[in-house]
Amino acid sequence: MEKNKLKKIIIEIFEKFKLSKKHSVICAEAIINAELVGAPTHGLSRLKMYCDRIQKKLINPKPKIKIKNISKSVTHINADDSIGFVAADTAIKKAIKNAKKTGIGLVAVKNSGHYGMSGYYAEQAVKKNMLTLIFTNAPPAIAPHGAIKSLFGTNPICFGSPTGSKVPFILDTSVSMINRGKIRVASRSNSKIPEGVALDKFGNPTTNAKKALEGVQLPIAGFRGSGLAWMVDILSGVYTGGNHGGKVKDPFDDFSGPQNIGHLFIVIKANLFQPNYKKRIKENIKRIKKLPKLKGLNEILYPGENKYRRYKKNFKFEIEIPKNIMEDIQNLLK
Amino acid sequence: MEKNKLKKIIIEIFEKFKLSKKHSVICAEAIINAELVGAPTHGLSRLKMYCDRIQKKLINPKPKIKIKNISKSVTHINADDSIGFVAADTAIKKAIKNAKKTGIGLVAVKNSGHYGMSGYYAEQAVKKNMLTLIFTNAPPAIAPHGAIKSLFGTNPICFGSPTGSKVPFILDTSVSMINRGKIRVASRSNSKIPEGVALDKFGNPTTNAKKALEGVQLPIAGFRGSGLAWMVDILSGVYTGGNHGGKVKDPFDDFSGPQNIGHLFIVIKANLFQPNYKKRIKENIKRIKKLPKLKGLNEILYPGENKYRRYKKNFKFEIEIPKNIMEDIQNLLK
Repeated sequence: MEKNKLKKIIIEIFEKFKLSKKHSVICAEAIINAELVGAPTHGLSRLKMYCDRIQKKLINPKPKIKIKNISKSVTHINADDSIGFVAADTAIKKAIKNAKKTGIGLVAVKNSGHYGMSGYYAEQAVKKNMLTLIFTNAPPAIAPHGAIKSLFGTNPICFGSPTGSKVPFILDTSVSMINRGKIRVASRSNSKIPEGVALDKFGNPTTNAKKALEGVQLPIAGFRGSGLAWMVDILSGVYTGGNHGGKVKDPFDDFSGPQNIGHLFIVIKANLFQPNYKKRIKENIKRIKKLPKLKGLNEILYPGENKYRRYKKNFKFEIEIPKNIMEDIQNLLK
Repeated sequence: MEKNKLKKIIIEIFEKFKLSKKHSVICAEAIINAELVGAPTHGLSRLKMYCDRIQKKLINPKPKIKIKNISKSVTHINADDSIGFVAADTAIKKAIKNAKKTGIGLVAVKNSGHYGMSGYYAEQAVKKNMLTLIFTNAPPAIAPHGAIKSLFGTNPICFGSPTGSKVPFILDTSVSMINRGKIRVASRSNSKIPEGVALDKFGNPTTNAKKALEGVQLPIAGFRGSGLAWMVDILSGVYTGGNHGGKVKDPFDDFSGPQNIGHLFIVIKANLFQPNYKKRIKENIKRIKKLPKLKGLNEILYPGENKYRRYKKNFKFEIEIPKNIMEDIQNLLK
């Protein structure tokens, strides 16, 4: 479907579900961005879920978002169970504003929900010539090192920086070995998953996708990745007032209450210490790109380059919508 | 050797090499701490190196450390080629002070050197009831994803938090699959190293330790770890004014100039958003420790617990000093 037409439809759906025009636009833009960067798991495939949760009063379509300024740099946001997109958009804009004034902005959010991709908000800061670190927790997906039960979410660590070119440096990495989606695909096609990415329900390593789905996913690099996932849970959940320690609800199948996800946004001015920051990072990237490469590899890419290329390419075309999602959309419009 | 006796000797050595009494004490305490927590690679084994670099005028024993306050939260430190311990100690104390005033402290350091372990400085912040993120770069050790030449350092990511108990949460993790020290040990004993941790000099995977030493070490989790190492290089090097992009000199064998390592310290008050932070993190840790465990495992530990236990145990005994290091010490005292 043509992008602008799709955007109008998404806005119409969210307005139908009682979101304000402004909030509906924020959500529609984030969802379309996910499709364009090639992350459909964070795009249209979640539209019905968001609407279901609104209908079940687990997402508040008319949130009274409370913004509490603690100092010129520091703000706390109680998102009042708003849809995650709106909470995150409010928070990154506030963090940028604080950083403009004092060099650094720290914004903590509680009572939020799934907000799509951290990198999308990081890009807003980078466009204002700022660096950013963004942390959010998520429903249980990964077993802590030594455990045989999932508790940590995929808990992404996101870092963004200007590069002196139009392609931002956006690292947005989960700390799981493999996406759950890939295990699901392998399970359906009866193919194996790589070694070392999952355990079965008894805690034994498995390459059987079905057994992995009944078991747990493993963090990257054992205790290192487990420690990073734990750090993200503390920074975004324990610290902000959000749910934590395995209590973030799965948005697709747990309707026992709002998700209460927490997020933490740190934004710092790029030229706070070095007026020639852009020149410095350009030089940094140049040195790394010039390194001798693995056989068959033409280019070393920095985080965010691939995504940017996918965006540029996809932008030229209509967005392909799978049949089942098209049906969702038609039902939501009814 | 008895700890206090050893401390006196280290202080004597640094004073002999023209450091002030105050700075010598800072160095001695950091070095002894590394021995006590079971990280001898960051302790006495580096003493001769530090003194060599002072003698070659690559570390400045009488630095004029310039502290520039940019805002109430933000400070830049030009460490004037000071020994890393002193630069980092100055920086973390300043970051804590800034955070006390405004909730958050951001301190960037340039013209510093190897400062031992990030976790040691994180503990200072945690003792003041603060959370901290600490980034530092290091000499080339890891190949960026897709490259067959080392450029990133082991570039640790360090995060510390109070826990409501006397054992702090200190994650201090390098982003390499394996410590270089372990490859050296394997090389000497002609034993193999694990698969997937290193490439030979032609870019082929190897389990031969000698070939790995001639080749490169790999980051954790491929592009994810490579991205994290890159992030640390940007935050601690590009951003602060330190060396970056492979230009940090190896302290042991590159005497062509000062290291000019950069560090970045972010410190935030634990109870900035949630007055009951300690209760919340206690609950978080309790939930995770209660999870069902892998067969044969009695306990899930949080990052920092193991180190704390080693410290407590080692504290009761004298510090064992290998013969070659004892000879170094005797020579340095001459």
